Amino acid sequence: MEKLLIIKIGGNIIDDEKKLRSFLNDFAAIPHKKILIHGGGKVATELSAKMGIETKMIDGRRITDEATIKVVTMVYAGLINKNIVAQLQSLKCNAIGLCGADGNLMPATKRIGTEIDYGFVGDVDEFRVSGFGFKVLLDNAMTPVIAPITHDGKGTLLNTNADTIASTIAVALSKEYDVSLFYCFEKNGVLENPDDNNSWLKKISSQEYVNLKSKGIITKGMIPKLDNAYSAIQKGVKETYICHANHLNSIIAQREMIGTTLVL
Amino acid sequence: MEKLLIIKIGGNIIDDEKKLRSFLNDFAAIPHKKILIHGGGKVATELSAKMGIETKMIDGRRITDEATIKVVTMVYAGLINKNIVAQLQSLKCNAIGLCGADGNLMPATKRIGTEIDYGFVGDVDEFRVSGFGFKVLLDNAMTPVIAPITHDGKGTLLNTNADTIASTIAVALSKEYDVSLFYCFEKNGVLENPDDNNSWLKKISSQEYVNLKSKGIITKGMIPKLDNAYSAIQKGVKETYICHANHLNSIIAQREMIGTTLVL
Repeated sequence: MEKLLIIKIGGNIIDDEKKLRSFLNDFAAIPHKKILIHGGGKVATELSAKMGIETKMIDGRRITDEATIKVVTMVYAGLINKNIVAQLQSLKCNAIGLCGADGNLMPATKRIGTEIDYGFVGDVDEFRVSGFGFKVLLDNAMTPVIAPITHDGKGTLLNTNADTIASTIAVALSKEYDVSLFYCFEKNGVLENPDDNNSWLKKISSQEYVNLKSKGIITKGMIPKLDNAYSAIQKGVKETYICHANHLNSIIAQREMIGTTLVL
Repeated sequence: MEKLLIIKIGGNIIDDEKKLRSFLNDFAAIPHKKILIHGGGKVATELSAKMGIETKMIDGRRITDEATIKVVTMVYAGLINKNIVAQLQSLKCNAIGLCGADGNLMPATKRIGTEIDYGFVGDVDEFRVSGFGFKVLLDNAMTPVIAPITHDGKGTLLNTNADTIASTIAVALSKEYDVSLFYCFEKNGVLENPDDNNSWLKKISSQEYVNLKSKGIITKGMIPKLDNAYSAIQKGVKETYICHANHLNSIIAQREMIGTTLVL
């Protein structure tokens, strides 16, 4: 099977023009089929404030009311997505910017019946991802750039966690491609000591992950990310990495392995 | 050659939820390959106001400074585009929302050296449209929905007139398809008396167009639209219509012809 890299970048890279430019340079140079998934960043919060919309967060998750889904659609699927596409195009990477509604790539289910009302938030699963749609784009030399907005199939847009989108697409496409999944952020990997960027763990098995959680070494923010990552490798994704955006190309070229590899 | 319909809808339809829904119902039902191009509408102006950005217009054209290109990218390529896509998907039309930067579909040239500095505004031409990109999407049962944002190939997004985008795509694809171009708005066609919606002209030749302009019957707002339309038919587009959004399907089905047909 042909190699396919699925790479998610976090908000801290998106928020910093220089870091983003540097990352996109590296991304454009990857000599394989690839998909980029981007999160949101601070711009949505800033725009909400300018528009007088209160940003509500519970456990680090945005509550998406009617005004907020409009803002995140504008910022994620509009401003951030199209700026990334224009920059990648200038680097001769044939990017095409999409959200989950486009081509019905990722239909989602509005989250209801939970203790917290998250509002316009959608959950996705790998069985409903349009493998055909992604394949048409990839096989015609296009590089999908995915904003974390989905839809319910009934005309409503939904906000969806970008980490989950990345692992879900990775699983769905692992039937067609030899998929590697990368979560890129501003740290060197999963850190044993959150204050020491050199304390990254080389390899974590799913059993070690359970131990690290129970010891309180892996905590809140990292847990959903790692849950997504382990779910992906359990369901057929070949490799999953948590790494600094700057080290992406070294890992891909197998030059230097700075970052955390997750294994079953 | 296979039939392809290129349909542009104006801001007045986009601004009105009911009118838009009704139009999208009709659009989804068209039994041919099709592309939708949408303009902006009032939302960009309203959002600019909320953000404290002054909207500058000269001769009905928006001056696009750095703050404004961000707003129109958010509103056109984000909010409006993705809402149209989600609604079309709910109507079983496999819409895919894009701007000119995506897949390098429409590279543009930043307008410079003119008397008025329009700012981040791009001009497009039919020779640079990616016929290949559009064909990949159309031949794989996708319906492109195009927001009027383009790029300069160097990483900068540009604002481009949606009427011009429609005619330029129509010309570019007329080598591959039997293209009909429709400008849909809230009037019955080109009106002899702007206050009487029943005074629409059935057919206008390019010679009659010159006369109607010199008599002051066709005036400011309509001139760029008609210039685009005549340019398209001169360059190979088979048919061009100016019509009310409500009459689109009657014209396509050749049931009833309410609207203006433009001929050479």
